[in-house]
Amino acid sequence: MNYCSECGAEIILARPEDDNRLRHVCSACNIIYYQNPKIVAGCIPEHKGKILLCKRAIEPRSGYWTLPAGYMELDETSMEGALRETLEEANARVEILGLYAVFNLPHVNQVYMMYRSRLLDMDYSPGTESLDVALYSENEIPWNDLAFTTIRQTLRYFYADREVGQFRLHTGDIIKQGEKYSFRAGPDEIYDDYSSSTIIQRP
Amino acid sequence: MNYCSECGAEIILARPEDDNRLRHVCSACNIIYYQNPKIVAGCIPEHKGKILLCKRAIEPRSGYWTLPAGYMELDETSMEGALRETLEEANARVEILGLYAVFNLPHVNQVYMMYRSRLLDMDYSPGTESLDVALYSENEIPWNDLAFTTIRQTLRYFYADREVGQFRLHTGDIIKQGEKYSFRAGPDEIYDDYSSSTIIQRP
Repeated sequence: MNYCSECGAEIILARPEDDNRLRHVCSACNIIYYQNPKIVAGCIPEHKGKILLCKRAIEPRSGYWTLPAGYMELDETSMEGALRETLEEANARVEILGLYAVFNLPHVNQVYMMYRSRLLDMDYSPGTESLDVALYSENEIPWNDLAFTTIRQTLRYFYADREVGQFRLHTGDIIKQGEKYSFRAGPDEIYDDYSSSTIIQRP
Repeated sequence: MNYCSECGAEIILARPEDDNRLRHVCSACNIIYYQNPKIVAGCIPEHKGKILLCKRAIEPRSGYWTLPAGYMELDETSMEGALRETLEEANARVEILGLYAVFNLPHVNQVYMMYRSRLLDMDYSPGTESLDVALYSENEIPWNDLAFTTIRQTLRYFYADREVGQFRLHTGDIIKQGEKYSFRAGPDEIYDDYSSSTIIQRP
């Protein structure tokens, strides 16, 4: 950030009064430019136990499979954003059943909000950002060709919940360490380990 | 927005290729400036059935009571943001128990994420943005002097859940119509009416 987008003067890094962080501040008109994380809103579109996935046509991770999701826009709710992205990326109409996963990705300043949803008809097709759209049953999910850790974690929770017979909110953080990504479950979690089928109730 | 913050050239409103919205775009270097909603992260700090509220020292709604909450910052998770705001506004340390309320406020492009939490000690005091901080039991809550509809709705759900004996996620939207604000419950809700004590399971 070099220039004030209001008056065109030079931007400096400064700590405003009563603030504990350096901000981009205009050296002439003193406007403070705050930067904040963005919400990625999306759907888990289900039909008779199958999930609708999109093959990405754009970077990052072009050619890999994902759930329909994208940046929430101004003047909409997170649910409206999830519905819009599902329509844009998969030309699919869904009914939203509930908020299912809230994952922080602090390394890219994103918060994913994924909604469980029910596909309303079978007239889905690839949108401009997708190469392909297809319904996958649990044993067909292309686990090694999923685009993002958030998508993998969302689908893992989905199938674990389905086995237990109860869907509930999941929260957590995707942490980047070097080139690797790991998942840190939030305090809402009762599942501690996916490699076993044991469900552990946290204290 | 008048000037490009990277090169200083004039900003125009234009619809980028493969986009369906007008964006602020630089007329010289073609950078697109996206604008997106912000997350407000906060806590419901509980101690023996009482809730810690802060009396606001800043506008908007200076002098009115609120839960500790504020804009999520870059490089932090929503939980870290909620903990930080609770420390900054109430000098209070809490343990987060779980994500409790996710409310959209499309008229101000905010998404509230409120966490249930347990006060870890009694050494709370007003931060620079608070005039006072105090623990309130249910029958002491200053319902007519609460700062925001989001706070009122969060506390309503909290006490309704406490009566039932089970806390669960709540979602919804605060809708501004003229000068009035109303609450539209999300698909996660099972409570349809707070004026009665009846709990209605939605279809």
